[in-house]
Amino acid sequence: MAEPTAGPSVAGRRARMTVAYDGGGYHGFAENAGVRTVMGELRAAVARVVRVDVPLTGAGRTDAGVHAWGQVVSGDLPVGTDLADLRHRLNRLLGPEISIRAVEWADRADFDARFSASWRQYRYHVDNHPDPNPFTRTTAWHVSAPLALWAMNAGCDALIGEHDFAAFCRRPKVAPGDQAPSLRRHVQRARWLAVDDEQRPGLLRFEIRANAFCHQMVRSVVGLLVRVGLGAVTPGEVRSILLAGDRAAASQIAPPHGLVLWEVGYPPS
Amino acid sequence: MAEPTAGPSVAGRRARMTVAYDGGGYHGFAENAGVRTVMGELRAAVARVVRVDVPLTGAGRTDAGVHAWGQVVSGDLPVGTDLADLRHRLNRLLGPEISIRAVEWADRADFDARFSASWRQYRYHVDNHPDPNPFTRTTAWHVSAPLALWAMNAGCDALIGEHDFAAFCRRPKVAPGDQAPSLRRHVQRARWLAVDDEQRPGLLRFEIRANAFCHQMVRSVVGLLVRVGLGAVTPGEVRSILLAGDRAAASQIAPPHGLVLWEVGYPPS
Repeated sequence: MAEPTAGPSVAGRRARMTVAYDGGGYHGFAENAGVRTVMGELRAAVARVVRVDVPLTGAGRTDAGVHAWGQVVSGDLPVGTDLADLRHRLNRLLGPEISIRAVEWADRADFDARFSASWRQYRYHVDNHPDPNPFTRTTAWHVSAPLALWAMNAGCDALIGEHDFAAFCRRPKVAPGDQAPSLRRHVQRARWLAVDDEQRPGLLRFEIRANAFCHQMVRSVVGLLVRVGLGAVTPGEVRSILLAGDRAAASQIAPPHGLVLWEVGYPPS
Repeated sequence: MAEPTAGPSVAGRRARMTVAYDGGGYHGFAENAGVRTVMGELRAAVARVVRVDVPLTGAGRTDAGVHAWGQVVSGDLPVGTDLADLRHRLNRLLGPEISIRAVEWADRADFDARFSASWRQYRYHVDNHPDPNPFTRTTAWHVSAPLALWAMNAGCDALIGEHDFAAFCRRPKVAPGDQAPSLRRHVQRARWLAVDDEQRPGLLRFEIRANAFCHQMVRSVVGLLVRVGLGAVTPGEVRSILLAGDRAAASQIAPPHGLVLWEVGYPPS
């Protein structure tokens, strides 16, 4: 897409969008000079439609190759923008790889997609059938050896509640003298279920919801729980690894294409 | 994939395979010199594993971009071939775009994937939601205007039974002096149903089963029935178009990527 013609900022009204995307063709969500990112494409398209450059904030910075169904983005659109028309035109510019599922005015002038969020929910799909499946290859991790669902769910139990998730987080860069940010997170739900149907035999889904996630947390958790499902790690060891903050034990990161940012929750207005 | 080293033909035993593929990256199913086709890749992979060139026959010659879940392929494999090992190695060579779902010895020495078949079933998916969906974009035709499912099903009624489907078939090439092949086909079932779920809102599926199909028949039928769903053609007009053999009236061909060869039926052994 061509660079937008950036205009001056104008009086705006806070809006929020719900955005789905297939992350396969993007170098992640967040803008990054010189590469194609979801936010880069979105911001260029918004600028093209409303004719001013609109700074945007996303709820979650998904990594390269990670998908979204319910990413939330906020920003100030010119007062009087026709939201239905904007959505229609954005979908013509961005679809079908990126789809704007909703655009609405925010209920508060200080609504912020990232900082107002009270929880995030991710899903991760594993294709657990001996044969590869042409139709889930871009959205599910193919693990051909049989996984014990009960063991993976038993392993989930240790994750529920508020913990320091250092074992499952890529260590953030900290400038000398600065305090390392907390990796405490509150996991509200974590469970595996079989969601296979006739064209997706053996499809498993992991659902995890927390107040927030640190970097690569879901993929680290999935990597470990799949090892539990294979019998290489016991469900009880998940707790030990979590408590020990043992990053080495949870260093097998599941591939990005099985992950989808499913939904972001906000307090009621 | 590199060209196989073609060896001499050896004493063989008739085998059948069930094959799924994402047709998006292939110039159709049938072999075609100079371009990448599903059968071309499959035959090269089989030759590489069993070390002889094996002529193969497919049940249905799907067009460029058309998918399959239950394509059936037959051919004579060397006696003593380990079928489980063959399947495993073919999936390593061909997956995940092409997947061998089953390989077994045929129940008859004269089993032929094409000529022994008693029926074929196709499915066609339409994404009938106003917004494009990143996750169905390679397997469903996006029709954003609302479709009346009842009207499309009423339009199906005329198709059931044995008819001359000239209105829905690309005219076959006939050499001067030769008789034109019959376009009579027996449609056993044709119906639309809503199969949407939370990540695929508005997804519709068309299922059609017949003894055989002529070229582009399913896509022509879908093209017309979608016009019925839009209100541009009445359900009753489907019968008139069929009876009149009016190719011009059914010339809007649905795109290939919504179509999947779902299953092929054979008489019990």
